Amino acid sequence: MDDAMTERTKTNVAAIVGGGVIGGGWAARFLLNGWDVRVFDPAPESRRQIGEVLANARRALPAIYDRALPEEGTLVFCETLEEAVRDAQWVQESVPERLPLKQVIHAAIANAVKPGAIVGSSTSGFKPSELNERSTKAIVAHPFNPVYLLPLVELVGDKVTCERAAGILRSIGMHPLTVAKEIDAHIADRLLEAIWRESLWLVKDGVATTQDIDEAIRMGFGLRFAQMGIFETYRIAGGEAGMKHFLAQFGPALKWPWTRLMDVPEFDDTLVDLISGQSDAQSSRYSIRELERQRDDNLVGILRALRINKAAAGKVIAEHEKSLVVEGERDELPVTLYRQVPPSWTDYNGHMNEAFYLEAGSKATDGFMDLIGADEAYIARGMSYFTVESHVRYLDEVHAGDMLTATTQVLKGEGKKMHLYHRLFRGDGAMAATVETLLVHTDLNARKTCLPAPEVAEPLAAYAAAHENHEKSGAGRFVGEPNKSREVTSTPA
Amino acid sequence: MDDAMTERTKTNVAAIVGGGVIGGGWAARFLLNGWDVRVFDPAPESRRQIGEVLANARRALPAIYDRALPEEGTLVFCETLEEAVRDAQWVQESVPERLPLKQVIHAAIANAVKPGAIVGSSTSGFKPSELNERSTKAIVAHPFNPVYLLPLVELVGDKVTCERAAGILRSIGMHPLTVAKEIDAHIADRLLEAIWRESLWLVKDGVATTQDIDEAIRMGFGLRFAQMGIFETYRIAGGEAGMKHFLAQFGPALKWPWTRLMDVPEFDDTLVDLISGQSDAQSSRYSIRELERQRDDNLVGILRALRINKAAAGKVIAEHEKSLVVEGERDELPVTLYRQVPPSWTDYNGHMNEAFYLEAGSKATDGFMDLIGADEAYIARGMSYFTVESHVRYLDEVHAGDMLTATTQVLKGEGKKMHLYHRLFRGDGAMAATVETLLVHTDLNARKTCLPAPEVAEPLAAYAAAHENHEKSGAGRFVGEPNKSREVTSTPA
Repeated sequence: MDDAMTERTKTNVAAIVGGGVIGGGWAARFLLNGWDVRVFDPAPESRRQIGEVLANARRALPAIYDRALPEEGTLVFCETLEEAVRDAQWVQESVPERLPLKQVIHAAIANAVKPGAIVGSSTSGFKPSELNERSTKAIVAHPFNPVYLLPLVELVGDKVTCERAAGILRSIGMHPLTVAKEIDAHIADRLLEAIWRESLWLVKDGVATTQDIDEAIRMGFGLRFAQMGIFETYRIAGGEAGMKHFLAQFGPALKWPWTRLMDVPEFDDTLVDLISGQSDAQSSRYSIRELERQRDDNLVGILRALRINKAAAGKVIAEHEKSLVVEGERDELPVTLYRQVPPSWTDYNGHMNEAFYLEAGSKATDGFMDLIGADEAYIARGMSYFTVESHVRYLDEVHAGDMLTATTQVLKGEGKKMHLYHRLFRGDGAMAATVETLLVHTDLNARKTCLPAPEVAEPLAAYAAAHENHEKSGAGRFVGEPNKSREVTSTPA
Repeated sequence: MDDAMTERTKTNVAAIVGGGVIGGGWAARFLLNGWDVRVFDPAPESRRQIGEVLANARRALPAIYDRALPEEGTLVFCETLEEAVRDAQWVQESVPERLPLKQVIHAAIANAVKPGAIVGSSTSGFKPSELNERSTKAIVAHPFNPVYLLPLVELVGDKVTCERAAGILRSIGMHPLTVAKEIDAHIADRLLEAIWRESLWLVKDGVATTQDIDEAIRMGFGLRFAQMGIFETYRIAGGEAGMKHFLAQFGPALKWPWTRLMDVPEFDDTLVDLISGQSDAQSSRYSIRELERQRDDNLVGILRALRINKAAAGKVIAEHEKSLVVEGERDELPVTLYRQVPPSWTDYNGHMNEAFYLEAGSKATDGFMDLIGADEAYIARGMSYFTVESHVRYLDEVHAGDMLTATTQVLKGEGKKMHLYHRLFRGDGAMAATVETLLVHTDLNARKTCLPAPEVAEPLAAYAAAHENHEKSGAGRFVGEPNKSREVTSTPA
């Protein structure tokens, strides 16, 4: 495969004019999608900056895909603007937000670029007619930081060029949004600037600190905005009566001093009809119930992702979870997991995906490690258990919303070894799976096996002794083994 | 365990006054955290509405935790306000946004509530001083829809009451944010109202449709806002020079017509110092590089979550991924997975979590199914393979950013059975794991095993024949088996 990829002809060249955080983000987006990139930026720190952005991008962008991106293109720093743009199919200008500077640069690009190349400007605020006072080529192609991760690019300008640009942007994983009319700050930055100005007032007036405002965003509406915009969100808020109802309810509030933005449009029937008509065109193929489900599934996924990172709202969840206790016994074995199955654990077969049976088993191992004192504090001291081998039997289907309980039986717990046998039960009592797993105690710093501390070894041995005579049917199997073909074995010493 | 939970004494009672979408969301949040809930709402549709919100909440809220929530409390609909609030520790008013109505309700609540109970209002815009014109009890406790998932609650009013309220809100998994001064619309709704008014202008002026605006939000800054607010985001944008640099760069733009919100605060040194000082207090314990990493890890997690749902930015990723091809051979076996390891696949041991080895194996199975024509279209026809047994050997550590390649060997492929042996290789060539898995062909509608269609059975048989004499070391093991203890076996017929 590597050979095939090396032989792939790379003909795509992007020129990056202005190599700060935004230019660097564009460079990374093109490079990681297999384009060659030529950078022109006379600033001495540009190489280092682009290198740092690229390092971030190499870590992050491929991680969102389940397949590898194409082989990375070649990055070249050029001495002149002409050299950078000469062979490019796409030229992206990301110089500082000063119009005279941008105009001079675009005139120079127009002179040097080959016919048919797209020339985009990353400008946050200027209109194509302003950029093109000295030339005729440029469109606005306004991205969002980090450019290598966020898909949005606002396109403004010549329609035919925007359409060609849109195709190229899609091919590098981005989402082009063509703006119908040129206007200062396009679309997204108008909304951001309104928030920004409102926020400055809140800080200045002592209503909120910068941190308060940031928390007000990311703990609430920011989570919604990651997956639905303001109109679809409010359509849901209107309930079954839909957008018209929402507008009727909150229309009068436009006259109230709920923001410093008091220059509001006349809220007449024409505007209400325009908005509810557009909202119907956008969303009426889904009922409010369906939109709620989509929203909730997305929010659950987002919150679970943040939970892994213990970041923002995910930290709130992780803290709250500490107050939820898993305890008790079932069939004389300790309960080590008790939870509901999230929608994101299911797959195209309409049931819990095979990998999440092992995820549940892994969490049961964590639960058992807590029980024997191999907990967070123990791991922080540099010791843990590493899994060396696992075996899963899938006995019954499990669906989103099912309750899952796991019990843990110790098959062996001596020396460095911990051999566990988890049974997973559905809420209706059916055994859905068994997960058999062998772990070895490991020094996290040396990355070498070692004996557990006595405070862990002793409770582990006690569980092993207590479980020794408990039945073990289903343990010790190899994949595809006929039932009861051999005596069930435990780990050899 | 079930017994223990049933016996748990439930003493917490919440009263919900006004049972629409917001009141229903509060009811669900309390119930699912084990509180008893008493609802008062004279509207005839209230029972149905709360039932629907509760159904959504039962599906979504438990899914964000890896442990079960407490046993659900009891929901009672009351005939009178007095009956609902009498025994409550928390009374939450969520009636329509009309001040005289709210004032009457709060006077009635104040008369009926027991001493020491918290009385909160879900008002979007009114101040406690307005709500309390006829009473003295109420604070603002302003939540965000869906209340059962979004953690934010803005608290405004008496400091001591807000502090007690904050403790209770944390105990039900929410994030209280106490607002320093009362102001119309508190904090978050001021920002939202500014966006809303700006959006109305964009629609009215024909710059953008409701859908354009929604895409501009969720494909770009909305993703950032799910994990960092506007100040921390702009701190990063300022780069190593930090907040002061950002402010110096974009301060002048406050005078530009980038939004209809032209009533801006004087951008003097006092305001710059106030903002950069607060931003330092909030974020200076992290370098810009660290903040970028946090942001990127969060964005990667969020984007991967949306990808599973094929929603919003996740749909862009899924579409783009179709253009990425996994192909080729390695050691005469087909390559069925080639990808980078995302940070979210790693765990507290600082390496790829055991469950994600199986996730990778599962994706390799998908890749192999594509190869033999058991692809998306085949599954859509109602046929697929279900896993019955898997075995994983963990041979070496894998880290975030490592490239993973999987090859797939068919150990058996006849009748209903498909017995696969995946080998996972790191980018440096080391074999990191093997995943052995037995699947059976299944009718997705009947949920019963059946023979595959010939167009799948034939290529599968061809692979099985081609791989028959390929070495199989490591296959056929049971957990803890000594190396080479038995002859390697294949699945019995």
